[in-house]
Amino acid sequence: MKPLKVGVIGAGRIGRLHAENLVRHIQGAELLWVADVVGEAAAKAAREFGIPKHTTDYHEVLSDLEIDAVLICTSTDTHAEIIRAAAAAKKHIFCEKPLALDLAEIDSVLDAVKEAGVILQVGFHRRFDPNFRRLKELIVEGSIGSPWLLKITSYDPAPPPIAYIRASGGIFLDMTIHDFDMARFLLGEVEEVHAAGSVLVDPEIGAAGDVDTAVVTLKFESGALGVITNCRKASYGHDQRIEVLGEKGGLFAENPLPHTAMLADQEGYRSAPLHHFFVERYREAYVAEMEAFVAAVRNKTAPPVTGLDGKIPVVMGYAAKRSLEEGRPVRLSEIDPALDAG
Amino acid sequence: MKPLKVGVIGAGRIGRLHAENLVRHIQGAELLWVADVVGEAAAKAAREFGIPKHTTDYHEVLSDLEIDAVLICTSTDTHAEIIRAAAAAKKHIFCEKPLALDLAEIDSVLDAVKEAGVILQVGFHRRFDPNFRRLKELIVEGSIGSPWLLKITSYDPAPPPIAYIRASGGIFLDMTIHDFDMARFLLGEVEEVHAAGSVLVDPEIGAAGDVDTAVVTLKFESGALGVITNCRKASYGHDQRIEVLGEKGGLFAENPLPHTAMLADQEGYRSAPLHHFFVERYREAYVAEMEAFVAAVRNKTAPPVTGLDGKIPVVMGYAAKRSLEEGRPVRLSEIDPALDAG
Amino acid sequence: MKPLKVGVIGAGRIGRLHAENLVRHIQGAELLWVADVVGEAAAKAAREFGIPKHTTDYHEVLSDLEIDAVLICTSTDTHAEIIRAAAAAKKHIFCEKPLALDLAEIDSVLDAVKEAGVILQVGFHRRFDPNFRRLKELIVEGSIGSPWLLKITSYDPAPPPIAYIRASGGIFLDMTIHDFDMARFLLGEVEEVHAAGSVLVDPEIGAAGDVDTAVVTLKFESGALGVITNCRKASYGHDQRIEVLGEKGGLFAENPLPHTAMLADQEGYRSAPLHHFFVERYREAYVAEMEAFVAAVRNKTAPPVTGLDGKIPVVMGYAAKRSLEEGRPVRLSEIDPALDAG
Amino acid sequence: MKPLKVGVIGAGRIGRLHAENLVRHIQGAELLWVADVVGEAAAKAAREFGIPKHTTDYHEVLSDLEIDAVLICTSTDTHAEIIRAAAAAKKHIFCEKPLALDLAEIDSVLDAVKEAGVILQVGFHRRFDPNFRRLKELIVEGSIGSPWLLKITSYDPAPPPIAYIRASGGIFLDMTIHDFDMARFLLGEVEEVHAAGSVLVDPEIGAAGDVDTAVVTLKFESGALGVITNCRKASYGHDQRIEVLGEKGGLFAENPLPHTAMLADQEGYRSAPLHHFFVERYREAYVAEMEAFVAAVRNKTAPPVTGLDGKIPVVMGYAAKRSLEEGRPVRLSEIDPALDAG
Repeated sequence: MKPLKVGVIGAGRIGRLHAENLVRHIQGAELLWVADVVGEAAAKAAREFGIPKHTTDYHEVLSDLEIDAVLICTSTDTHAEIIRAAAAAKKHIFCEKPLALDLAEIDSVLDAVKEAGVILQVGFHRRFDPNFRRLKELIVEGSIGSPWLLKITSYDPAPPPIAYIRASGGIFLDMTIHDFDMARFLLGEVEEVHAAGSVLVDPEIGAAGDVDTAVVTLKFESGALGVITNCRKASYGHDQRIEVLGEKGGLFAENPLPHTAMLADQEGYRSAPLHHFFVERYREAYVAEMEAFVAAVRNKTAPPVTGLDGKIPVVMGYAAKRSLEEGRPVRLSEIDPALDAG
Repeated sequence: MKPLKVGVIGAGRIGRLHAENLVRHIQGAELLWVADVVGEAAAKAAREFGIPKHTTDYHEVLSDLEIDAVLICTSTDTHAEIIRAAAAAKKHIFCEKPLALDLAEIDSVLDAVKEAGVILQVGFHRRFDPNFRRLKELIVEGSIGSPWLLKITSYDPAPPPIAYIRASGGIFLDMTIHDFDMARFLLGEVEEVHAAGSVLVDPEIGAAGDVDTAVVTLKFESGALGVITNCRKASYGHDQRIEVLGEKGGLFAENPLPHTAMLADQEGYRSAPLHHFFVERYREAYVAEMEAFVAAVRNKTAPPVTGLDGKIPVVMGYAAKRSLEEGRPVRLSEIDPALDAG
Repeated sequence: MKPLKVGVIGAGRIGRLHAENLVRHIQGAELLWVADVVGEAAAKAAREFGIPKHTTDYHEVLSDLEIDAVLICTSTDTHAEIIRAAAAAKKHIFCEKPLALDLAEIDSVLDAVKEAGVILQVGFHRRFDPNFRRLKELIVEGSIGSPWLLKITSYDPAPPPIAYIRASGGIFLDMTIHDFDMARFLLGEVEEVHAAGSVLVDPEIGAAGDVDTAVVTLKFESGALGVITNCRKASYGHDQRIEVLGEKGGLFAENPLPHTAMLADQEGYRSAPLHHFFVERYREAYVAEMEAFVAAVRNKTAPPVTGLDGKIPVVMGYAAKRSLEEGRPVRLSEIDPALDAG
Repeated sequence: MKPLKVGVIGAGRIGRLHAENLVRHIQGAELLWVADVVGEAAAKAAREFGIPKHTTDYHEVLSDLEIDAVLICTSTDTHAEIIRAAAAAKKHIFCEKPLALDLAEIDSVLDAVKEAGVILQVGFHRRFDPNFRRLKELIVEGSIGSPWLLKITSYDPAPPPIAYIRASGGIFLDMTIHDFDMARFLLGEVEEVHAAGSVLVDPEIGAAGDVDTAVVTLKFESGALGVITNCRKASYGHDQRIEVLGEKGGLFAENPLPHTAMLADQEGYRSAPLHHFFVERYREAYVAEMEAFVAAVRNKTAPPVTGLDGKIPVVMGYAAKRSLEEGRPVRLSEIDPALDAG
């Protein structure tokens, strides 16, 4: 089969990560273009990863007839525009989360993608983590029977800059959104969320109108309950664990450690701190995510994370936000009546 | 020092457990009486544990001038009456939780105890678990700086009989009450609770007007958040874990296992299931709890779990109950205005 | 059944431990006497554990017709004499290891016990550790099929005083002897041992003619291999682990920790150091050992650790000693031709 | 810097593994040739990994002036000849272990390499495992002070075919050789070895003149002791662990698991079985090993595993073999008098 010809749009941290994975670890794809509004960023990535062409104008990538697919790794506020342009150019699309912060915008974008008949995969990389995948398999195999109670622990090592927080849409749309996706991935659709939040890490985060520590309770359509705990700071690294209690047993996906060496002395046993952050923690997941995208496009199969999978966690984020503001549980259908499956 | 002369009132499972601990493992105390309305239960305990006297009428114990202290291990609805009688007889009191299900009753009982000048210790045994005590010490030592987020996992191996559930006051007053106490023990006073619940284990529990699976969110006066997850059934045993995330690090108290033997084969590594239930899981805690009571009475020091410690978790239980019924967070001061410290 | 009337001979550390266990934790036995050549030691133990009678002359205990059994917890060089006297007085005997350091002496003692028809149990307490018992059960149940390779890790927290080492018979007869017993307990009889040793912890130990670090290889009659690693010092506590590799899988008995609390911070995860030494590590084992002795005497059943079980590890200790001295593997039958089962 | 031009000689399992790593994961190197006496194997590897040229005659690779370095991944009996030819052609050399089974041959090969002035790195991949590297760092940092006792556990999942065993030189030269290298890597030079062995896995292995289960005791020049346990079969996977006890503490490198998901049910907690074998277990190590070789050649620095590092484990293997045959400890200087540093 002919290799997939790919262009990456956005050469920031995540764009570079995907570019490097494509070049070094992914079979069946060739990276031909890198675009970034900052010319030097594009040039640097091209140089470092051996990408033949670079530009400051992503339209150049889209108008290259050789290109089959693009990876959209720019800032969130540009996603919708680029997706529309890429769909119009009949390019398959991998887009980082969130698709957009405006729900109407997301709907319009999904329509454009559908009309163009191209594949859209959204960047929820945690679904590709080998530990969480194994958890999912164990649920699907029925190892614990019906799932009753899901617990997701998700802490970052340190908060991002305040400017980032201001533009992020808040903790629920920026950070919890990954956990919302994971909750759906593992236990299916959610009907209602309740959020509690507090400013404990940094008062500046509060001044920016956000919280930095949160507890979000979920009610699934199945009747199961869930709880997500988030914090912008954990001194010991990127703490990412999942538990599921079910009828017949419990499942636990613990943090993988960078190495297994331990030191014992008079103060006890000491093992490694966690992986620092997502780049290290989800290294394998990012590769597997890109392999899955390349495979979906080449084999013309449904992508493992669809456009709707990109939208619903945004709805959940708004529901959590409203719950926190109004001090009450909020049904997803309050945010998007289309989701009232009941 | 003269040994403490003790009588145990109630010879059911928990009364027998305390009696056996007193006789076999506690220094400085002598068990002279056992009372139970079921004569044969009292006689059997007397015989088995070598207790000199037994009766069906607890007043006989209270009127024995030799007796210094009583352990109240009867059904909840009799606690208030017996505490009042014991206080009137100037006996020191160890009473199983909850003191009563009616808050006015609790207040009246606490008044009676205060007036009599006797010591009252309430049976929150988990405070004496060596693992949780070590967690508390680590918090107090400042190992993690300010605590931000508390997570308590508390599952029972199997639900009690439906008749028990009907009389229990519901999951929050029967099961979560221990976790409410633990939350206060570790992070101080709570201002507000939000409860979500579901009937997943057994529809009969729902028919009895209760839930069997719950997620309770706590807001502490300090601004910290907490979450308690409860389930009436975990096939792998009595799952009891606590985590605290703080400014400088995280703390974890894992389940102690009955033994450390592991088997590795083609299906992986297999370690022991958890201790079945509280009798096994908290064996050491029950002994330490009784030692603490005996020491408090003999040394005339404050008991480690006071009457107020017995009351507040009941308030929290009612707040959780109301939260579940009304689908909104409930402040403790709504239940007991006296708790509005704000 | 009438309680067993017991006297303890020797009120040093291990004598006091057994006395306290008998008084506080063992049903069906009554401790009537404590004897110690140091009168104050006997008096102190009597006072502290409420033992009615004490003496400096153990013959007084043996001549008390009420006494059914004695615990011999004196220094090794007095064991043989006291066992003979106790057997002559028809008392059942629990004796700390080793029975004696002289093999002929051991044989003569075993003859005396046999002739008197009394029960003799030897103090190999590790057999009663719940973790190692579970390992044994798993072997017996066939969970790993035929055992092929046994690995025993056995380190002390710190070396004993040099004077003790001089009188101890050397590391193999003092420390490894417990591991020799465990090897036989788990995998059956040993044919040959090879020992390597080094003086690394303290040159004074070398000056006293002993080694402080050793690796002992075992060949079992079954063809299985074993290896024991010993060291007189491990800064992190009493490290006591066992592994068995077999046809169908592996078994592992890890160290139980004093508590399960863990602290995570920038340097990683920190759990408790090990139990300091045998008193803490084998607390439950000592109780179970004494319960087993009391049960064997009361039920007139074979003791779980027989006189022969007391002798063979001494033979193994001499074989290891000779192996180290002569730099070659030594068969047990070289030390005691009676053991040549081949 | 110009990329290193590489040819791989031998397209069996390990040759293909290195080829794939070079093509997919190693920066700064280009794979130009693959040679294998089986033409179809060479052609297949060329096709699969996109290697431009393939041949059945490795001399063709050596005579290509563009080629800087070769990887020798053929059967052991051809190593010496190919190394000599490669050295004569002034190619840098990466050679799989063992260099040869004949010590004189090894010496002659090392002379040839030295004379040619090319770099030779030997394929002891375990030195590049991140867990064992961390252990080494912790030793070097002095975390445990002087190392006293090294324990290496090294089991394979299943024995190789009998034909392979017959040609392998026996367990000590085929399997233990890796552990001998690890022992030197961590604690320095060894003076004496003692080996015990047994045929437990498969009588055919015994019929082929080899053992399948072994315990090898090491005496280091430093006075430290070591023990290696080997078995050709562990049903639960490739068990590879290392412990070091030292003056100030203990170090432990546990097995990394394929994933962290665990299932708890009535039979306990079940985690993943180990990685099946070396390809999975040492995936990262093989990449790091090749990166180190490419870096050493490009930077003209000493390789991390030298020719002497390739020789000494073979000496140790012969010493273990003689020890097993003669039933006595054997000094390395008995095998190679040049090693008598004493």
